[in-house]
This record gives sequence, C-alpha cells and structure tokens, in this order.
Amino acid sequence: MKFKKVSSYFLLVVLFSTTIAMAQHTFVNTPPEVSPMPMKPEMTEIWQPEVAVITPGKNVNDAPSDAIILFDGKNLDQWVSQKDITKPAPWKIVDKEYMEVVDGSGGIQTKMQFGDCQLHVEWSAPDAVVDGGQWRGNSGVFLQNRYELQVLDSYNNRTYSNGQAGSIYKDVPPLVNAMKAPLEWNMYDVIYTAPRFKADGRLDAPARITVLHNGVLVQNNTTISGLTLYIGLHNYPLSHGDDVIALQEHGCKTQFRNIWIRRL
Amino acid sequence: MKFKKVSSYFLLVVLFSTTIAMAQHTFVNTPPEVSPMPMKPEMTEIWQPEVAVITPGKNVNDAPSDAIILFDGKNLDQWVSQKDITKPAPWKIVDKEYMEVVDGSGGIQTKMQFGDCQLHVEWSAPDAVVDGGQWRGNSGVFLQNRYELQVLDSYNNRTYSNGQAGSIYKDVPPLVNAMKAPLEWNMYDVIYTAPRFKADGRLDAPARITVLHNGVLVQNNTTISGLTLYIGLHNYPLSHGDDVIALQEHGCKTQFRNIWIRRL
Amino acid sequence: MKFKKVSSYFLLVVLFSTTIAMAQHTFVNTPPEVSPMPMKPEMTEIWQPEVAVITPGKNVNDAPSDAIILFDGKNLDQWVSQKDITKPAPWKIVDKEYMEVVDGSGGIQTKMQFGDCQLHVEWSAPDAVVDGGQWRGNSGVFLQNRYELQVLDSYNNRTYSNGQAGSIYKDVPPLVNAMKAPLEWNMYDVIYTAPRFKADGRLDAPARITVLHNGVLVQNNTTISGLTLYIGLHNYPLSHGDDVIALQEHGCKTQFRNIWIRRL
Amino acid sequence: MKFKKVSSYFLLVVLFSTTIAMAQHTFVNTPPEVSPMPMKPEMTEIWQPEVAVITPGKNVNDAPSDAIILFDGKNLDQWVSQKDITKPAPWKIVDKEYMEVVDGSGGIQTKMQFGDCQLHVEWSAPDAVVDGGQWRGNSGVFLQNRYELQVLDSYNNRTYSNGQAGSIYKDVPPLVNAMKAPLEWNMYDVIYTAPRFKADGRLDAPARITVLHNGVLVQNNTTISGLTLYIGLHNYPLSHGDDVIALQEHGCKTQFRNIWIRRL
Repeated sequence: MKFKKVSSYFLLVVLFSTTIAMAQHTFVNTPPEVSPMPMKPEMTEIWQPEVAVITPGKNVNDAPSDAIILFDGKNLDQWVSQKDITKPAPWKIVDKEYMEVVDGSGGIQTKMQFGDCQLHVEWSAPDAVVDGGQWRGNSGVFLQNRYELQVLDSYNNRTYSNGQAGSIYKDVPPLVNAMKAPLEWNMYDVIYTAPRFKADGRLDAPARITVLHNGVLVQNNTTISGLTLYIGLHNYPLSHGDDVIALQEHGCKTQFRNIWIRRL
Repeated sequence: MKFKKVSSYFLLVVLFSTTIAMAQHTFVNTPPEVSPMPMKPEMTEIWQPEVAVITPGKNVNDAPSDAIILFDGKNLDQWVSQKDITKPAPWKIVDKEYMEVVDGSGGIQTKMQFGDCQLHVEWSAPDAVVDGGQWRGNSGVFLQNRYELQVLDSYNNRTYSNGQAGSIYKDVPPLVNAMKAPLEWNMYDVIYTAPRFKADGRLDAPARITVLHNGVLVQNNTTISGLTLYIGLHNYPLSHGDDVIALQEHGCKTQFRNIWIRRL
Repeated sequence: MKFKKVSSYFLLVVLFSTTIAMAQHTFVNTPPEVSPMPMKPEMTEIWQPEVAVITPGKNVNDAPSDAIILFDGKNLDQWVSQKDITKPAPWKIVDKEYMEVVDGSGGIQTKMQFGDCQLHVEWSAPDAVVDGGQWRGNSGVFLQNRYELQVLDSYNNRTYSNGQAGSIYKDVPPLVNAMKAPLEWNMYDVIYTAPRFKADGRLDAPARITVLHNGVLVQNNTTISGLTLYIGLHNYPLSHGDDVIALQEHGCKTQFRNIWIRRL
Repeated sequence: MKFKKVSSYFLLVVLFSTTIAMAQHTFVNTPPEVSPMPMKPEMTEIWQPEVAVITPGKNVNDAPSDAIILFDGKNLDQWVSQKDITKPAPWKIVDKEYMEVVDGSGGIQTKMQFGDCQLHVEWSAPDAVVDGGQWRGNSGVFLQNRYELQVLDSYNNRTYSNGQAGSIYKDVPPLVNAMKAPLEWNMYDVIYTAPRFKADGRLDAPARITVLHNGVLVQNNTTISGLTLYIGLHNYPLSHGDDVIALQEHGCKTQFRNIWIRRL
C-alpha cells in the first residue's frame, strides 16, 4: 500500500497520524493528546522469518512442490490393506488414472501418518442410480483414521443431512450440496487441524476442518465433535498422535484419483 | 459408514456398544456400569434442515450457481471508481478476458456490499522485472474496503514477509510463497469471516481469513488484527456492517480476471 | 515494567533492541538485519479509550458499584412467577437474608433481560440427606431462560457427572466437585457469553461460560452445546436476544441469597 | 431437571418429543417426519469419568484442598531471588501476614513451574500518593515468567490504559478499573491458559487469561499477544514449557499475601 494513492478513507487516517507525528510529544505523566505515539511505516514490517518458496502445480489441481503424492494413478505404493496392514492395498487401478474400490476387500490406508494437513482428493461414484440413501457411492475419507469426511453420491439422493457428501459423518452437514452428476469427478480440498490433547490425555482442542467440494465451501472451520461413530454420541475418548488417512470400503462402487497432501 | 465393514478399530467400539445395549438397564439412583445409555443409529441422523443444492462450476474455477459474478471479462458493470463512486470503474478491459489497472486512475470497488463470503479472484502482474520490493505488481484486495489481502509479484522478489503476495498486509505473512512466474495467472480462493461488533460498537470478534494461493494454503483461518494501515498498529476503531470489495491501484501493472463471490 | 530492573531474560531482549536502535537504519529495498524497525516505549501505550472506574464491593462478594442487585434479602421486586409472569415471584423470603423455593409454586425469573454478563449468586440446599441423585436441593440457574447451570446438593451424592452441581445440565460436567456441606452456603461466580446468531437466524457462535464454584474453577470458558433439554441432543434451534434469568423449582428445598449481575 | 415441573417453554419441547416417541418409526430410505429419532433421558447422562471431589476453602479466598500454597505469611520457602535463583527470595515478611518488596533487591520467582492454572493473589500498594503514572505500587505478576499481569496503584492515577492495574502490560487494558483505595488489599483471581506450541516451535495457540480484580471481571478470556516487552510489539518468538511465576520489583512499595495456585 502506498501513501499517496490509497483511498480517501485510509488517506484520512494516515494524514491524521502524520499531523500528530509532527507535533512535539511531551510525556511527563501527562496523557498525550492522542495515543499511541505515531510510528514509522517500517515498524510494522516483519522481515523474519523469511517465507519458504514453493512451486504451485502447473495446472489447477496439480500437486505443489511441497506435497506428498499419495496417488497419481501409477501404483498403490503409498497404501496398505486395512484388513491386514502388512498386505498391499487390495483395490484396483484403472486406466493408470484412478483406483476403484473392490467390493469386500476392506478399506485402505496410507503407510504414512499425518496430523494437520491440506489434502486434495478427487473421487467419483459412477454407479447406476438404482439405490438411494446411503447406498450410492458410499465411502469416506478418515482423517487420522478416526474422523470421517463422508463420500457419497449425493446427486438427487436425499439422505440425512449429516450423512451426505461433504458432511462430517453423523456430525455436521455440509453448507450446501455441491455434488457433480454421477459420471463426473468430484474434488475435495481439505484443510484439517488435528485435535490437541494435554499430556494427561484430556482433550485440549477438538479437530477442525474446512472443506471445498468442487471449489465450493461446504465446511468452514467446522469443529469435529469427536471420533466418528455409526451409533451414539461422538467425543474424544482417547488421545492420539499423527495417524494414517483411510479410505472406506462400504460395498459401493467408488473411485479415487489425484490424491496429494501437504503437512501444515 | 456400515456396521460390518468398518475398520477393526471402529468395529471394537461398535461391538462393545452393542453388547451393552443387550444388557438390561437398571437405573434407580445407581450409576450404570457404563455411560451413556446406548443409542440407535438413527438418533444421530440430522434430517432437517435439508441442505440446499447448488451446481458447481463446469470447469475448475468456474463460478458455481449460487455465486455473484463480479467480473467475467465482458464489462465492469459491477464496479465503480474509488475516486468518485458515482463514476464508472476507470480500468481497462483487455481481450474480453481481463481488466488492467490504469495508472493514476485510482482503485475500484464493487457496487454491492459483502460480509462473510467466499471469493475467487485471478490476477497477474506481468511487469518486466525491473523493480523490486513493493514495486512489482502491487495491488490489493480489500475485504469490506478495510482489510487488505496483498497482491504483489512475489516471484523472486524479497520484501517484508507481511508485505508479499498472500499476506494480510502489514499484519500476517503467508505460510508459504506460492507465486507463479510473472507471465502466468495466479488464483486466490478466499474464505472470509467479517468482524463482529457489539451493539455499542465494541469489537466482538475479529475478522478471520483463509486463503488458497494457486491452490496452496497460505492463510489458515488467520485472525486479522484490524484495519489495514500503512503506518501503525492495526485495530478495529469503528464498527461497520457489510461493505464493498475494493481493488487497489498502486502505480503498478496488475491484471484481474474471473472474479466471483458467494455470500456465506 | 521499568527498563533497568527487569529480569535478566527481558533485559537481554530490551538491550538487544536498544543496540539495534542505535545502528543506522538503511532501507532501500534491502532487507534490514533485523526486523522490525525498533520502536519507542510510548508506541505501545494505549491511552484511549480511558478505562471506566467502578467501586468494587466493600467486602468480598458484595456487589460492585456497576452491578444490578437482583436480590439482597429485602424483597423479590426484581422477580416474577414463571407460571404467570404478570404475578409476583411466589417464593418465600426468610430472615430478610435469603429466598427459599416454595414447592409446587413454579420457577421464578427476572423482570430484566440479560445477554453477556457476570453473575454472582449464593445458594444452599439444606435438605436432610434422605434422598440422593437428582433429589437433593435440585434447582438451576437458567441463563437467558434457556441454558442451565445446575444447582444440586452434590455433597456425598453421586449422580451423573453432567447433572451435578457446577455442570451445564445434560451437557458438560464440572472440572471438580467443590460442593460445601449441606448447611453451608455455596457461591457461583459466572462469566457468561451469550450465543450469537446471524441475521437469518443461524447460529454464529455458541454460548460460553466460566464458573467458579466456591472460588474454584469448575467451567473454563466452556462451550454450551445448546438449549438445555431433559431429553435429547442440545442445539440452537432458534435465534434469540437478551432474555431473563430463571431459577428453577424442582420440588426440592433450595435457597438463594445475594444475587447481583453486571452487563458485559 | 424433572419432567413435570419444568417451565412451560421446556414442557412444550419435551411433550412434543414424547408424542413423537410414541409414533411408530419407519425408516426405509424415507426421511422421517422429524429428526432425529427421539432419545431417552438417560442417553445424555455422562457417568464417566467421575468428577474429582475437592474441599473448597473454609472462608472466601482460602485455598481449596487441591491448591498449592505459594505464600501464606509464614515464609518464602516457595520463592527464590530472580537475580540469583540459587538464593532465597530477598523480600521481607511483615506481621506473619504479607511480603513486601525490598527496593533494589530484584524480583522473586517460584521454585515450581506452572502452565495452565488458577491463581489467587492479594496485593496492596500502600505508598503515599506522591508520585503518579507508573510510579505508584508498580509491580507485576509474570505468568510463565513472560506474560505480565500488571500490578499498580491505579486509584485516582491516570496512566496509559494498558499499563494500569488489571491490564496485560503494554497489551490489553482492563475492562474496568476496580481498584481499592491505597490502604486496602486488592485481589486477583486469574484463570490462565498457557500458549501452545507445535513440535517445531511455531505458535499453535496464544495464551489466554481471565482476571477478576476484587471480584470484578477485568479480563475476559483475553488473548495475550505475546512476550511482555517494554519496547516494541509483543509476539511469541520462542516456544517454552511450564515455567515459574515471577513477581516484579520495580522500585515501588508493593505487598503481597495469600497466594495459592491450582494446576488446570
């Protein structure tokens, strides 16, 4: 912001400050006419620490240079089976582009563990529209293996509001339903803040999450009530540290592609 | 989330709850063995209110159906001059695609006023790299005409950390520098929560902002310290309601395109 | 804080700043060695607005000069019946010191309405210890006629944790049980922040409460989940403004004295 | 809260819920008429963990049973000299009741270290009213040896608002000035939440403080801007853990008595 070209509103403020600055400042237990003492522009400049430079993705949705690529269509090397974490992830790669849930194979989870993160994931639920409610493209992204961001084909598919796409499952509905049609890809851009626990295990601060669904805000720094449960009230019974990200297998046809994550 | 296919971790919790549910519950001023009384799955379903359906943009960065288009390359009808708000916005439209700052013309601002919002704006600072610091592509997006998200060509351009692209000007540096090269377009995706004031004018809650710069998180629910000032400490001297969004003219060559906003 | 007598830790910081201040500051697009530019002590002094002077109570627990006296033992003029708000409060004044619940008469509520406040209330539950659980001295302080700070004789009286004295009823247990013996008086010192609602009625920020029970912290800026309900999940179904403070009649012998409140 | 005696407002809600509960619940991908499924009262009772029982102080201001007594007039065994922490605290005990600052001796600090805490401290500044501003009874309570709650004789003594009694020094003014006359004792009741830092040293959450000054709220869950500095902007340059509580020596006559603390 430059002095002489700012809007009249700011100009007024700045001019006023400047006038004061030229007045002599006396200060012997006498309150000055105005407060506080005028400063110089450089006094509110912060030079340290220097901000790290990263390279954003070439195209929109491409991973930036400081991201960990969790899936780019080539292989499932970053994932294991949830039924047996010593085994490879049992899902199918299609067209060297996306992975597809294999019915009955169980969920998959990352080998790496994460806490606070920015996560990009694209998904599709290309089922024929034969079922409804929770049975169209149902899956889920579990942050820290505990807190579920629901994945569901919510296109023309009424279910409970905190069970549709973009919801924190059985907790908080999305602000809007921004679902694409069944044959199109959806995007989730997630900003996740892990829960904090005290040294003695008590909760210090609950998890929070911001989600853009296809570029549209559906969760706005939402407080997550606790461990996702199918039955009963959610809370934080046990402290934990970083943990894996899991993708749920729920007996539905769901696909994922272009998954990357940045630690925050 | 379906009962029989969840991960072993959740299975344990659910099984445990189910066992309890089958035990007879006696409750005559005697604490039950466990707490609370087991529930049914439907009890944590929220059906009302129903979530509004919107249509996301066809391509990434396209405005969703509930957005207000502030600029799509055709005209500046949504904007006026900051020097004289009865006059049209004095900036130039190029190639029916973007607008360009006209040196000395002053800033521009929207006709409409906004509070909490999601804002998408693309910008470019295609100057020759002759100057540095604050003199390459300097402009700014002023939320509510007061709180500046800095616009600057921060590509290989060291300045103060809270003065570079993605910073809340003279307040909070960005988490990383995610700047594109000078001839490329940058994107800001902003989630803005306006400050709240009490009925008597005192600040109730400061403004907060989340910013993705080229898809990379640079402000994470950041608390804005107050009115952006070139000189001196920022605070909230006066209460206000919704207000215009302004784009700054700072004597630099800066371009903007594809600006849309959603009220939150 | 004075310069030459601060602890060595601060001395170091201050000395360092001072050294820098004496160095000449050059600033032509060259980052300075340190940041930001050193300031003068007066620059962080805030003189305006001047802080309002009040007179604290003469003795501990006495109302300060800016408090509204809701009950001082003389009369119930500040209260009405909840069964019929056009009628006087039907409770009994004893010894010109305290009021006592009259069984079956219903609750009472203030004539005045409040939002954010600091509330002092003393209470006693001098029942013979014949019953237990929720049947000894049960009453409640309802902030804004909706959010219940539980009153109960919790001395050697196990009940559910979020139903004992100092709890936000059916919501949040107290941090500790600081109950006095049945024939003694208890104090609640409450700092209450009302919920905020948006113009369209949606919740903007939930209510929060801090409670000292007999001088001991039992609620620490606790988020209140919503409208107190005997059955079901608490939330904020309807927006509201300032409202009365109510004292519950629950068929138990409970007494109140020395009630004052300050608007915040 | 009992069913049949609640206020009419709640009665309505509860009756409504009960009616619904008696209706048969059908649920086959058909949204129910209301949501969520009615619950039983016991489902929102929390029995575990049981709340710890403590004994509050016999008289107001007395330490509760779970407090650590930092000073009760008998000795300074819990304190050391800040000039040389291997040496005893150099201040004077008077009348087996209070301690008095010894001019030039330097500050004192606790042997024990604390983080989150509830702190009670009484103080007096019985100087003759000869000086003004910062020179009457100036001292300070430094939480974690870094964040100063100002101690000053602010009775009829105008100074900068964020430098008077009850202020967070050079940071946040008190809400009101609740100072007692010079020959009387003042009380501070403090609820302090230490700052949180990430594993890499970055600030995760700033410190927060609530202060009652003579029973009157003067800081309401205030965010502390950072390390208290006499000169310059406050921030959190370095992470730290629990640390001592320090009392400042500032060349003024100040007295302290009845200091106790509870870990939170």
